[in-house]
Amino acid sequence: MRRAAGGYELYYWPGIPGRGEFVRLALEEAGAPYVDVARLSKARGGGVPAMMKALASAGASEPFAPPFLRSGDLVIGQTANILLYLGPRHGLVPRDEPSRLKANQIQLTIADVVAEAHDTHHPIAVGLYYEDQKREAKRRAAAFARERIPRFLGWFERVLEASGGSHFVGKRVSYVDLSTFQLLAGLDYAFPKAMARVGRRTPRLRALAERVASRPRIAAYLASDRRVAFNEGGIFRRYPELDV
Amino acid sequence: MRRAAGGYELYYWPGIPGRGEFVRLALEEAGAPYVDVARLSKARGGGVPAMMKALASAGASEPFAPPFLRSGDLVIGQTANILLYLGPRHGLVPRDEPSRLKANQIQLTIADVVAEAHDTHHPIAVGLYYEDQKREAKRRAAAFARERIPRFLGWFERVLEASGGSHFVGKRVSYVDLSTFQLLAGLDYAFPKAMARVGRRTPRLRALAERVASRPRIAAYLASDRRVAFNEGGIFRRYPELDV
Repeated sequence: MRRAAGGYELYYWPGIPGRGEFVRLALEEAGAPYVDVARLSKARGGGVPAMMKALASAGASEPFAPPFLRSGDLVIGQTANILLYLGPRHGLVPRDEPSRLKANQIQLTIADVVAEAHDTHHPIAVGLYYEDQKREAKRRAAAFARERIPRFLGWFERVLEASGGSHFVGKRVSYVDLSTFQLLAGLDYAFPKAMARVGRRTPRLRALAERVASRPRIAAYLASDRRVAFNEGGIFRRYPELDV
Repeated sequence: MRRAAGGYELYYWPGIPGRGEFVRLALEEAGAPYVDVARLSKARGGGVPAMMKALASAGASEPFAPPFLRSGDLVIGQTANILLYLGPRHGLVPRDEPSRLKANQIQLTIADVVAEAHDTHHPIAVGLYYEDQKREAKRRAAAFARERIPRFLGWFERVLEASGGSHFVGKRVSYVDLSTFQLLAGLDYAFPKAMARVGRRTPRLRALAERVASRPRIAAYLASDRRVAFNEGGIFRRYPELDV
């Protein structure tokens, strides 16, 4: 009953954009029918219990953690792996192998930035509250803002320039462009000061993010209640003491 | 002159097994001709300068960091992406899409463990020495050993069992099995006490690692000087104060 006819089921923690958002943006740009299961009411077969049940019943395909996608009999975990699957199906990556490898390489580097951004507020343990690792978080966030953000964004800007300046892969929008938009949005939310410092050195990234945001389907999605706002339960958190 | 005829060039930091080792194990099991460029002498066109030059000249395919692989005109970065490329070429993953997605999903989870293992000794910044983040390292390593190792290895054991118990993907050895061997070897080196505690609950993983180590090509490789020993410059480091 909760299954979209011929569509996908996306499973991710409700209430935060997190890693699930990279998948949502691809599904939205593709106009693909999907159900965001954990955000559905329990009465409609949704919620976190439904997600945990789907996770536990995946057997040999069990993902380690959300997000995961159900497509027919397939259960696919790991964000970059889900996009590797969706990309060629929806024209969100060129079909040739070099392009798909390049897209995956960049997407995995985005995943690396996301993991490091998460660890700025959880440098010691995911099982502890932020307040219990705040001192360490300040040290880690300072290094992230001072060294890692410029190094990562410098690399993204350079690769985008070498790729022609308007798209990361091929001649039209790919899932990598969509993910780059989300990465910048998250970093802007969590580290506005640090991002302002690198802003002038990332003109192509900025222009790309604006083009993504103004694409008709993405613009409509961003204005809808399907889009989850950044907040302090997620990966990108605005703690002013971490952005100095 | 350093290029193996019809073969690959692997680029990774010499002196540590690190992430490059996951690629080496696949190349060795495949019997594929490759040159480990940064471990060659400068006189033979090798060394770190040759690696940095190859990195900087990759243009739109520039990897963010080693390891990367050159195959003809292709430059491929990100460990899991390199294995995604090599797997089907050398019979190290079944050809069907569900199997390849499953292999990639598990490999990306191995990458997650590797990143967390690295951060046990560098929880604050990669740009600082261990000694400058030792207090934080003790806290992070304790959480990793107590919570993350059991959770990750429990998941790997469960997926292996659900997959039939002898291979992660398909009916014969895949690059995921090879990487699992290396992951366990690294964790055994860095966290012998924590690993002893989970040992009894991971019989299938242990048996798999032993089978991998005794495969003829892998056994020959492990006994050769091409194999780099774990050491305290790498990802998996034996600091007794971090394994309690």
